[in-house]
Amino acid sequence: MAATAPVSEPTRTSALGAVLDELGAKLPHLTVLAPSVETSDYLDDAATRFSRRGAASGPAVALPSSAEEVQEIVRTAARHGVTIVARGAGTGLSGGASATADQLVVSTERLNRIVEVSPLDEVAVVEPGVLNAALNEHLTPWGLFYAPDPASYEISTIGGNIATNAGGLRCAKYGVTRESVLALDVVLADGELITVGHRSIKGVTGLDLVSLFVGSEGVLGIVVRATVRLRPTPVARRTVSAFFDTTEAGTSALSAITRSSVRPAVIEFLDGRTLVNIDRHSGTDLSRRGGSLLLIELDGYGIDEQFADLRDALEAVGGRVRHETDAEAEALWALRRGGRGFDERSWFAGGDIAVPKSRIPDVYAAFGELEQRFGVEIGAVAHAGDGNLHPVITKPIPDGADPLAPPTELHDAADELVRLALSLGGTVTGEHGIGTVKRELAALELSPRSRDAQLAVKAAFDPFELLNPGKAL
Amino acid sequence: MAATAPVSEPTRTSALGAVLDELGAKLPHLTVLAPSVETSDYLDDAATRFSRRGAASGPAVALPSSAEEVQEIVRTAARHGVTIVARGAGTGLSGGASATADQLVVSTERLNRIVEVSPLDEVAVVEPGVLNAALNEHLTPWGLFYAPDPASYEISTIGGNIATNAGGLRCAKYGVTRESVLALDVVLADGELITVGHRSIKGVTGLDLVSLFVGSEGVLGIVVRATVRLRPTPVARRTVSAFFDTTEAGTSALSAITRSSVRPAVIEFLDGRTLVNIDRHSGTDLSRRGGSLLLIELDGYGIDEQFADLRDALEAVGGRVRHETDAEAEALWALRRGGRGFDERSWFAGGDIAVPKSRIPDVYAAFGELEQRFGVEIGAVAHAGDGNLHPVITKPIPDGADPLAPPTELHDAADELVRLALSLGGTVTGEHGIGTVKRELAALELSPRSRDAQLAVKAAFDPFELLNPGKAL
Repeated sequence: MAATAPVSEPTRTSALGAVLDELGAKLPHLTVLAPSVETSDYLDDAATRFSRRGAASGPAVALPSSAEEVQEIVRTAARHGVTIVARGAGTGLSGGASATADQLVVSTERLNRIVEVSPLDEVAVVEPGVLNAALNEHLTPWGLFYAPDPASYEISTIGGNIATNAGGLRCAKYGVTRESVLALDVVLADGELITVGHRSIKGVTGLDLVSLFVGSEGVLGIVVRATVRLRPTPVARRTVSAFFDTTEAGTSALSAITRSSVRPAVIEFLDGRTLVNIDRHSGTDLSRRGGSLLLIELDGYGIDEQFADLRDALEAVGGRVRHETDAEAEALWALRRGGRGFDERSWFAGGDIAVPKSRIPDVYAAFGELEQRFGVEIGAVAHAGDGNLHPVITKPIPDGADPLAPPTELHDAADELVRLALSLGGTVTGEHGIGTVKRELAALELSPRSRDAQLAVKAAFDPFELLNPGKAL
Repeated sequence: MAATAPVSEPTRTSALGAVLDELGAKLPHLTVLAPSVETSDYLDDAATRFSRRGAASGPAVALPSSAEEVQEIVRTAARHGVTIVARGAGTGLSGGASATADQLVVSTERLNRIVEVSPLDEVAVVEPGVLNAALNEHLTPWGLFYAPDPASYEISTIGGNIATNAGGLRCAKYGVTRESVLALDVVLADGELITVGHRSIKGVTGLDLVSLFVGSEGVLGIVVRATVRLRPTPVARRTVSAFFDTTEAGTSALSAITRSSVRPAVIEFLDGRTLVNIDRHSGTDLSRRGGSLLLIELDGYGIDEQFADLRDALEAVGGRVRHETDAEAEALWALRRGGRGFDERSWFAGGDIAVPKSRIPDVYAAFGELEQRFGVEIGAVAHAGDGNLHPVITKPIPDGADPLAPPTELHDAADELVRLALSLGGTVTGEHGIGTVKRELAALELSPRSRDAQLAVKAAFDPFELLNPGKAL
């Protein structure tokens, strides 16, 4: 079945066709979409969607609504050697949920129940298809929140967040997804269901398989239920802005926060080019207020003391510090969350590197030389509290040029930034994952023996490579 | 080589003898102790030490001082099929570091360098034999601390803490050891050295092998270097005591903290029997102040606001709340840390269960019936912030009875408490680990398929079972 040939009816003699026939017979209430142009949305996630041309036949898609259905789907696919891609909302930025027309996508969109909220255990039990924002909306009346907040929180699922060990803005203080997952029900490649972890906060019985599944990008099993940790809504929150004259002045100010006693919930750094981009798209005047911006959220007890210490620390290194009003704060955060600078008139390449946090200034300092060498523009937003940067590399599209055929210089510059991160003691991906798009780069970070160890773990769980083959590892 | 026959010279024809010969030739500067009664201390950790009778020949012991030496030791042992037990300070409470006379113990006591402290990256790089307390003493002048604080912190090593994913008092707020480990250098069963994780706070390249090694009790590899996360010393700390009339009144008050907005760094609950035991051993009068005690440490900003909210919450449920002076606080914490009630005139069995935190009252409520059924006394200290309890089961030793032959009722009662924890949604071990002493109990928690998954991971790393065989899994 060629990926470019639209197919409205599966070839009944193919392995995938046999799987669909069997599922139809065994699970008459299960919705299964046959491969066709109708399912082509399931070919891509947010990383690969923009580069696809024209119509194509998508994969088969199963929409289970129970763990038992997932088990039956996996067992049936395994018998016929059909490979499976588990998929949440498809908002991933590394191709981890992309699929081909001969694969079976298991979508979690109907596994979307919030099973339980226990304020006294501070946990929620959810199915993987629950949207991150939907969980938090549900929790608000309880005075609780679920901390991991990837920028996609309004449209991404808890299951997808678990698959990528998603980070976000708040994780400098509250940790990444892994720190908020206590237990998982997982369907393995042989269709068996196992429960790993526990509802208690602590527990060390055997190897920590919960952490192994978190961030494994669907290559070890399919999460069908998660027990996640909740936290009380902070007694106070305050947004603080600090403008600096230049990008360099802003990056060198970051260590002033580290040297202080304050540990903000969120520390976002926006460089000069990002401020210009935001102003151009949104009609704002951030770049007139300064050459770079630290956007900070304090929370918890002693908010006035925290603010005073933070202000002293940042003013001492040249920051113009302001306590933003609620309305201003909301506007600034909206600009930040929307502010990755994508623009249809430019070719675009994104990045997701992380470095030890003292080395953030070195990354920004390298942009100028890279811009000259590759003929591109580079700006970056950084989750500065944990050294995670999202560079945006752009180049205006000349009239008549193909928007889907960016010059290689964009990706060369992005790769060079990854090499820089590694040379600074950092990593290929801070929070987006490896998927398909960073596999070659991962080889720069992992030694051959380390990669062998990863493959051995994969083989221990999925010896026939049925689950999301070719991703992550 | 029988474990009970003292051997002063290894049998040169044995596999272990051949390993020692080869190591002597290849690494002339490496200290290696031949199996003898001199090495009998290495037969046990703190879980098994007290039950050993008389003199016995210990295992061979290697004391490497570099990663390269560990690699050579592992390669040599592997060639001869001699199994290896990695060992820190031997303070473990599950038999995880116990060894037999035909094994080679790799002690990390000479791998004890603090390699680096980076205040701006908020990390330290340490070798595994560094004592937990030594690291924190070293960090004090920097205004930083390493959060995991098992009760054994003064005598246990960072490597041992990593092997057991040690918890402690502060982990309700700051997380267990896993949350403070960013990267590890690990010698695998084939002698290869791999680096897993990264110095950046975030990173999702490949599977999370750091979390897999943390808590793996030496069965997957030997940690030879760790990059750990540091935190700034809080701007304020305050000890708060709350006495309640009875144990039951105290346990039902715990949810008042959960319902409040305050999240203390430490929440220790001491029941009535524990207070009586402490008073008897230490000459204090805690049990006259109340029938149970919540001992709490607040830290961070807004300490007065935190105290006011906590006091209001606890007084509303009958607590007599007091802000302790520094001197009183120090004395109370010393009593708590020393207060597990061990007494040479009693037989003793310890426990380490964890339950979802709302179920702590159910555990204490069961003690009376168990005491009657098994003819024992049961008290418990709980890390109440994370549902982790350490029951102490005792029975006075009648005159003339064998102190090393406790009646089976003690362990029967301990096992019954584990079953209770499981029935409440809890776990067999909150922080001590499985080792040798909880292997059968672990089978009550893990399903056969889950256990198979664990064994498959073990086989992926150590197919010939050279590393700490028979432990943890």
